Order: sequence, then C-alpha cells, then structure tokens
Amino acid sequence: MTDLVLTTYDWVPEGPRGFVRDMRLRWACEEAGLVYSVSTVPFNNRGPEHLARQPFGQIPFLSDGGVELFESGAGLLHLARKSEKLMPRDPAGEAETLQWTISSLNSIEMVTVPWWFLEITGTPDNHLTGWLESRLSHMERVLKEREWLAADRFTVADLLMADVLRVPKVRAFGDRPATEAYVARISDRPSFRKAHADQMAHFAAADAA
Amino acid sequence: MTDLVLTTYDWVPEGPRGFVRDMRLRWACEEAGLVYSVSTVPFNNRGPEHLARQPFGQIPFLSDGGVELFESGAGLLHLARKSEKLMPRDPAGEAETLQWTISSLNSIEMVTVPWWFLEITGTPDNHLTGWLESRLSHMERVLKEREWLAADRFTVADLLMADVLRVPKVRAFGDRPATEAYVARISDRPSFRKAHADQMAHFAAADAA
Repeated sequence: MTDLVLTTYDWVPEGPRGFVRDMRLRWACEEAGLVYSVSTVPFNNRGPEHLARQPFGQIPFLSDGGVELFESGAGLLHLARKSEKLMPRDPAGEAETLQWTISSLNSIEMVTVPWWFLEITGTPDNHLTGWLESRLSHMERVLKEREWLAADRFTVADLLMADVLRVPKVRAFGDRPATEAYVARISDRPSFRKAHADQMAHFAAADAA
Repeated sequence: MTDLVLTTYDWVPEGPRGFVRDMRLRWACEEAGLVYSVSTVPFNNRGPEHLARQPFGQIPFLSDGGVELFESGAGLLHLARKSEKLMPRDPAGEAETLQWTISSLNSIEMVTVPWWFLEITGTPDNHLTGWLESRLSHMERVLKEREWLAADRFTVADLLMADVLRVPKVRAFGDRPATEAYVARISDRPSFRKAHADQMAHFAAADAA
C-alpha cells in the first residue's frame, strides 16, 4: 500500500510515448526509491472531473496523502523535498538545485516547446529559431564546464534539464557535443531506463486492452 | 546593513520599465517586509562576470548570505521559504502555492512570452495564438471561481501569475473579465505599487546619471 499516486493518461498515440510528462515523476520516484502507484484519466475525454484536478486538461498530477498537486515541475520539487537523493539539504546546494530546476522550465523549456510546436505545425519560417539557438548555445557552454548542474552531483535539476533537452527535434538541433554527452549520460541511468520501460508498457497495455 | 541583495540591470530602454523581472523580487520583498539592497550589472555589455552568475545573460539574481541564485521563479520560491506572508506553512497550502507558482511559469508564461515575442517581431500569422487563447480561457474559468490561486489567501503564486498576465499585449487579449479584475486587484496592492515606483525610479536615475 502506497500513498503516492501518480496520474497519467489511460492511453496516448505512439508519437509521444516515452516523452509523456509522467516520465518525470516516475523517474524521480525511481531515483529516490519512492514506492508509487499509477492512476489514469481518459486521454480522449477530458471532462470536468479532470479539469477540477488539472485546470488545463493535462497530466501528470500527484497525490501524496492529503496533498494534491499538478505541474510536473511542482511534482518534482515536492518529491525532492522527500528525498535527499533528488536534492541536497544544505542551503547553497538546495538553492542551486532550485535555480536549475526553474531554469529548465522557464529559460529552456519556455523556448524549446513553442519552437517545437511551430516546427511540427509546419510553420514555414520559425521565428523562434534564433532564440532557441541562443539558449542552447548558452547551455552548451555551461555543460562544457561541468558534469552536473547543481551541487557537483546528480539532482532533480539534471533529471528535468535532460528530459527537456532529449526531445528528438531539440536534441538534433545544431552541433552541441557537451549537451549530447550530458543527455546521453543522464538518460542512461537505470532509473531513467526503468521509468521509460514502465511508461512504454503502460501505454502498450492500453493498446492491448 | 542587509544580506539580501537583488541584482538588476544598470539601465534599460523605456519600453520594459515597470516590467523588468527584478519587479517580482522587489514586490515579494515588500510583501514579506524583507529588507534588501539593489546591485547592478551593465545592460549593454554582458561580459563573462555576468555570465558566470547568470548563464543566459539575464537578470535578476539574488544573493542571500552565502546563497546565490538566478531565475526570478527560483528567487520567489527562495523568498517564500523565508516568509509565511508569501507561502503558507501547512503541507497542503504549500503544495498548492508551489503548483500555481510553477504553473505561472510553465503553463502560462511558456505560452505568453513566445506569443508576445512573435507579436512584437511582426510575424504575419502568429501560430501560437490558438494555444494562448486556450490557456487564457482555462485561466479565466479558474479565476471566475476564486479570489486567490492557492490556500484561500494571497501567496507568491498570485504575485507571479498577476505579473505574467499584466503584460499589456497579453492583458488586452480577448475579453476575460475575471482575469482583468484579478490582475487589477493584485497589482493594486501597496507592495506592488512600492516595488513598481522603485523600479521606475531606479531606471530614471540611470537616465539622469
């Protein structure tokens, strides 16, 4: 019996499998050795019950005893408070982890996701490409100089940054060897591979049902 | 003498004044009654010293005794840990505040900023408009039902969400009365007005120098 329940979709098309954002929470739980169960909401019919728990009709959301929260980034910081394996406990290490976690969301993903969206909708001239190029170059410089983003060790900030940067179109953008090595290394962790296999199996089971 | 130092630019053009992201940290300090001082980096010459403290060449960054951090969202969560006026201390209230803080950054600002960027660069057909419309409609529904985002009281999540939504082009988008009332109400707080006046005075002093 576990109190930690992660909610994702009951099914998604093949394209996003392995990238659905419940990955982030599964991965964090695996890293931290936290036991969790998985619950679902319908992908094809996002009704009032879903919107009451996630006002934008998205997933994941997390339930932890009496605490409920949506937003994968918020779920990650919540889990990080539960386990030192995700975030160090000294004030400087914690601040550095927080800073790079927010940076993954608000300096990198804020550019990669809209850029990716314009790419897949076939916008002839993607006006976000210059901005993406600038942000990814800055990240390349950072990753050339260090193995981990925060506190000289793996933290939830690496988990999130690698998850943002591993999106295929983003990963293939430009020649950025330090970033590529970072993404390859972080996503080769056993915790990532377990979480990824579990997400793939979850959606494959939905196909079979 | 104060240990809390907020770093912003020495000068910015008139357009962004009142919206430069040090506003968020000034405002949070005013709400919490935290004493702080202001330091600057050159706007026109973002050298290695600046990049060493903020790898994307942006501001603000915060120094708090031995702790340094960049990203306005991370700074806000750091300040929220210092003062209950910004975030309640019960686990459910804290989780709700965290969730809506991250949501402001990753569900709303991730759409408003790239959309705004395409608008100001004069992209003829802004392909992010449908996405913006959807996210802002969801927010309108949320704000119709409640006065505050989290824990039935003002929190740092309201500060951040209102700051994201008050950007003129975003604020003028569509007819969203609950959102407009929310933005008007939150940005009428004395703490906002004080922080705003201080930022305007800071950049006006740079003009005069």
